[in-house]
Amino acid sequence: MTTKENQVLDANYVADESVPWIPFFGNEIKFHKINMVTGEICVTMKSKPGSQLPPHVHHGTVIVCTLAGKWGYLEHDWVSKKHEVVYEPAASLHTFYTPADCEEDTIIFNVINGALEFKDEKGDTFLILNCAGSLQMYHDHCEKVGIQNPVDITKF
Amino acid sequence: MTTKENQVLDANYVADESVPWIPFFGNEIKFHKINMVTGEICVTMKSKPGSQLPPHVHHGTVIVCTLAGKWGYLEHDWVSKKHEVVYEPAASLHTFYTPADCEEDTIIFNVINGALEFKDEKGDTFLILNCAGSLQMYHDHCEKVGIQNPVDITKF
Amino acid sequence: MTTKENQVLDANYVADESVPWIPFFGNEIKFHKINMVTGEICVTMKSKPGSQLPPHVHHGTVIVCTLAGKWGYLEHDWVSKKHEVVYEPAASLHTFYTPADCEEDTIIFNVINGALEFKDEKGDTFLILNCAGSLQMYHDHCEKVGIQNPVDITKF
Amino acid sequence: MTTKENQVLDANYVADESVPWIPFFGNEIKFHKINMVTGEICVTMKSKPGSQLPPHVHHGTVIVCTLAGKWGYLEHDWVSKKHEVVYEPAASLHTFYTPADCEEDTIIFNVINGALEFKDEKGDTFLILNCAGSLQMYHDHCEKVGIQNPVDITKF
Repeated sequence: MTTKENQVLDANYVADESVPWIPFFGNEIKFHKINMVTGEICVTMKSKPGSQLPPHVHHGTVIVCTLAGKWGYLEHDWVSKKHEVVYEPAASLHTFYTPADCEEDTIIFNVINGALEFKDEKGDTFLILNCAGSLQMYHDHCEKVGIQNPVDITKF
Repeated sequence: MTTKENQVLDANYVADESVPWIPFFGNEIKFHKINMVTGEICVTMKSKPGSQLPPHVHHGTVIVCTLAGKWGYLEHDWVSKKHEVVYEPAASLHTFYTPADCEEDTIIFNVINGALEFKDEKGDTFLILNCAGSLQMYHDHCEKVGIQNPVDITKF
Repeated sequence: MTTKENQVLDANYVADESVPWIPFFGNEIKFHKINMVTGEICVTMKSKPGSQLPPHVHHGTVIVCTLAGKWGYLEHDWVSKKHEVVYEPAASLHTFYTPADCEEDTIIFNVINGALEFKDEKGDTFLILNCAGSLQMYHDHCEKVGIQNPVDITKF
Repeated sequence: MTTKENQVLDANYVADESVPWIPFFGNEIKFHKINMVTGEICVTMKSKPGSQLPPHVHHGTVIVCTLAGKWGYLEHDWVSKKHEVVYEPAASLHTFYTPADCEEDTIIFNVINGALEFKDEKGDTFLILNCAGSLQMYHDHCEKVGIQNPVDITKF
């Protein structure tokens, strides 16, 4: 019994210029790939110095690699710098920020499993963002800015 | 360079009688293992004939194997019978039920990734159950029924 | 910004009679679903009393739920009985067996991530079974026994 | 029933200077985090222009984000540039290289699930690198270069 290749899927390369930046609470995000079976999302976020996101819980793991700049969570003392990695277990709650004195835009690459649940100032949930909602954001934005044939970021 | 064993973790056997059944919307659930890093939950549910669960979305995959009886989703025509498997992609919405004419209790084994989000009759979310909430349910129940030293179901 | 449904995939029901049992080292296995993106495999194994498998390492997690009978690993003292769950972390090595005095066939349901690497008596690897090899086994068997239009177990 | 926090794990920040670069087939790798339950590995690789890796199959998904430079697979036409993402489904086989004319070192961040299986020129497997082997490499290297109290990269 040998292991022959059968319907093996190739590596998926996503050209950076083929997918747009999408406004996201004062930051910008770019979806690279969304797995509609598992719900896994590969997304980059770009933030100016002094930016923030509403607090969020995530219901699976989030792995973050810092591509440029620096960032932290208000709940923690550390600041993640270029090429460092933060591993976030499920169910943790954080408030993302970039330091006001950061000399360049901060760019982070994220691998997200499970949904992100965003909280308002009272602690009430106002957005649960999973793979379906993320894909909807992508298509809504492409339509809005006139991208006619958006890349199918769900394809493998 | 050879691959030596280093901190390899052993298989985790969870004796059935060591973890309790917990009431859950008219059904009963038993947590076998909760991974507090990934949020993955192994849980069995037991339901009498004619039972239901509130509709829920899950934000990662859910894999279900039917151990006894039969069940379905109100949204689908199929009925899953003993030893059959249902694979549920992320972001799908379902309403679990067991047929009223089922001759025995239905028991299903579930591997859940990401949270379950339960909806009320108006479609409003009233419970988001992730690994942290599940663990809390487990400890609350153990305390309530007087289990002094509950098994640590988060340990590997 | 609301979360609308977009390309959400439905729950996948796999009818038990639609997929065949395949001989596997003196046991029989039935593939329910193979995810060709992640490599995840849902497979049931049926074993007569006194059966064994060659020792194997698995390179991701394996979650096992016992549907009938009982089984263990030669490396461990416990015996898993009906409706119990075993959670196997990555990189662990085991030798599956069913007790000779088991009164019925043992049936276990497995959710496998990463490949299984089987070892011969000298400890040398003779088979690495991943999603591609498993799918090949499925198609080879269907062809051999004359199943004309096998269920596409990779579809979601 | 409310979702209270219970044993929720905090985000894990790994300072870049706290973990060493380890030689790897003419390249250098840095492990950030290894999950000994799931086998998931977060690792960065740094390669000089004109570098290569032996061909390898991976048995789960590999997600790659390019932090600097550029790289490709000999089997494909594309070249991945700074801040681009490549998503690799399970069971695919590739030969990593960096173009000889690359003006800087290439640095890629990888999230690996399941083992990597490296092949020699005849196509024979000579190394299967999973979480256990990766952790062993890490400890062997720390010992070799005199790092007394290496960071526990398996901790969450």
